[in-house]
Amino acid sequence: MNQRVAGFRSIGSAIAVAMLVFSSLAHAQSDPLASWNDTAPRKAIVEFVATVTTQGSPDFVPPAERIAVFDNDGTLWAEQPMYFQVLFALDRVKELAPQHPEWKDQEPFASLLKGDVKGAMAGGMKSILEIIMVTHAGNTTEQFETIVKDWLSTAKHPTTKRPYTEMVYQPMLELLDYLRANGFKTFIVSGGGIEFMRPWSETVYGVPPEQVIGSSIKVKYELREGTPVLVRLPELDFVDDKEGKPVGIHQQIGRRPIAAFGNSDGDLQMLQWTTAGQGPRFALYVHHTDGEREWAYDRESSFGRLDKGLDEAQAKGWTIVNMADDWNVVFPSDPR
Amino acid sequence: MNQRVAGFRSIGSAIAVAMLVFSSLAHAQSDPLASWNDTAPRKAIVEFVATVTTQGSPDFVPPAERIAVFDNDGTLWAEQPMYFQVLFALDRVKELAPQHPEWKDQEPFASLLKGDVKGAMAGGMKSILEIIMVTHAGNTTEQFETIVKDWLSTAKHPTTKRPYTEMVYQPMLELLDYLRANGFKTFIVSGGGIEFMRPWSETVYGVPPEQVIGSSIKVKYELREGTPVLVRLPELDFVDDKEGKPVGIHQQIGRRPIAAFGNSDGDLQMLQWTTAGQGPRFALYVHHTDGEREWAYDRESSFGRLDKGLDEAQAKGWTIVNMADDWNVVFPSDPR
Repeated sequence: MNQRVAGFRSIGSAIAVAMLVFSSLAHAQSDPLASWNDTAPRKAIVEFVATVTTQGSPDFVPPAERIAVFDNDGTLWAEQPMYFQVLFALDRVKELAPQHPEWKDQEPFASLLKGDVKGAMAGGMKSILEIIMVTHAGNTTEQFETIVKDWLSTAKHPTTKRPYTEMVYQPMLELLDYLRANGFKTFIVSGGGIEFMRPWSETVYGVPPEQVIGSSIKVKYELREGTPVLVRLPELDFVDDKEGKPVGIHQQIGRRPIAAFGNSDGDLQMLQWTTAGQGPRFALYVHHTDGEREWAYDRESSFGRLDKGLDEAQAKGWTIVNMADDWNVVFPSDPR
Repeated sequence: MNQRVAGFRSIGSAIAVAMLVFSSLAHAQSDPLASWNDTAPRKAIVEFVATVTTQGSPDFVPPAERIAVFDNDGTLWAEQPMYFQVLFALDRVKELAPQHPEWKDQEPFASLLKGDVKGAMAGGMKSILEIIMVTHAGNTTEQFETIVKDWLSTAKHPTTKRPYTEMVYQPMLELLDYLRANGFKTFIVSGGGIEFMRPWSETVYGVPPEQVIGSSIKVKYELREGTPVLVRLPELDFVDDKEGKPVGIHQQIGRRPIAAFGNSDGDLQMLQWTTAGQGPRFALYVHHTDGEREWAYDRESSFGRLDKGLDEAQAKGWTIVNMADDWNVVFPSDPR
């Protein structure tokens, strides 16, 4: 027996070491926030959850009121080199181009089809809206759902070459699970299109469609040969960004969240609205500081700019995730 | 011992009778649909629920997809002599009148303040909108919630003199509970104001605010001396009626219900949309046939008209509740 545990002075010490190893393995496996380093953000999350779930405590929050809201782009999944929904729209333009020969001479499509994204965006919001409408409207809700699912099943991220659904943040997946395991209801509140997220939010994030809030275009109910359809119209309905986020939360949830998670100035009003409620509140910003494993950007970025929000978070003592220091894994398939 | 069970031929027969009595009492107490007579609608409901919850059956529906939608006015609570929200608005006009001396000479308020509701409504939708805006807008969402709660805690129904929250249908409360006990998620989808229903939907129906869909006015996010508020604007946002119901369901739930419950032509599109999906579907109309315990009205009614819907329900074999025959109790405080 002693020969088999060579290097150890006794069976006793071999067993002690083995127990330590197994116990820390078991701990790692059972740690619901395994991808979070033991730094301030993790501690703040765990403390907040303990506070609101401790029965009999004055800060106890009943499960029905444990509403947590998450931005999507840059908070749950990456948003570089540009919002993935914009990349989807660009792919759609190419796909639809054969049916639209006129686009060859018509901006913003002409530039886009030449691969000149910057030129296409020169028209500002008007160009972006035009691209969104031709790529997102004119079909039924069921057709659009199929288009999104088909795209996600084949498209690859331009630099990492991974499927977009693998460009999600492992620590945030764990956080979603951890909150739900503690009786929270988790919602997505994104400036992105609601119908672009719903087809995959349940399988990727565990967030069902009825808990997804986003920007939308109008839809219209019609009977086509007796069969009801909802047709997507080329008309903006709601922009779920900045001041729109508390409005969207109010309209779709109807009560104030107790925890909010974002990464940009577009989330600032959501964090303000959440933390202004009475009782314990939690606000967290993901700060993109990791240029090696992800992208490093904040105050000057054209996507997901974090400027005013960073100042307000520091002034108000909100939790700020320093991606480089606080996460030991970024994407699920990263080496551990 | 035999003397104590006088009238029975033996201890054995006394025990047998007692067991029968107790067992039927226990059955009545444990019957989740006790207020439903054993007629066709009850049978259809129980059969549908058994069908979609039987694991391994080809018609099994996973819990996440067991979405059931309920109209409110005339389906979950009464709507006569007129929608309760209109009665709320009339009370609000009287309450606000001292701050609006100009209303004495200004329609539709002048007629309203004289008690002439019909005269006030002579201006049609324009008058109704004017009344809604002055009584529902111009405050914050939190202020409006308090106004609704205060009204409900004191106002009485004009003919029954009961609180409005007791004018709910006992069989429908049982049905909501029964569906939830079988893994359904229950939603309200009403033409009424979403913010008029949310303050009490959870306590009265067990339906949390995030599962209430209704008509809405626009709200705007503002910082008032650094404190965020949502201000209710005098501008219609969404009308959740007729063709609007499938649209509201799509926007807020994002998937098609498998069961829908209504009472009027305003619910027809919701029932069409629900039943047009693949797999087992259930649609039910409450038909107001009980002029004694409730009100009897259908094709000619100005509120909750059931005309086209009744024809389509008959043609398509949807379940129709004949209130007089199918419910043994209407309101919770009715004698049993």
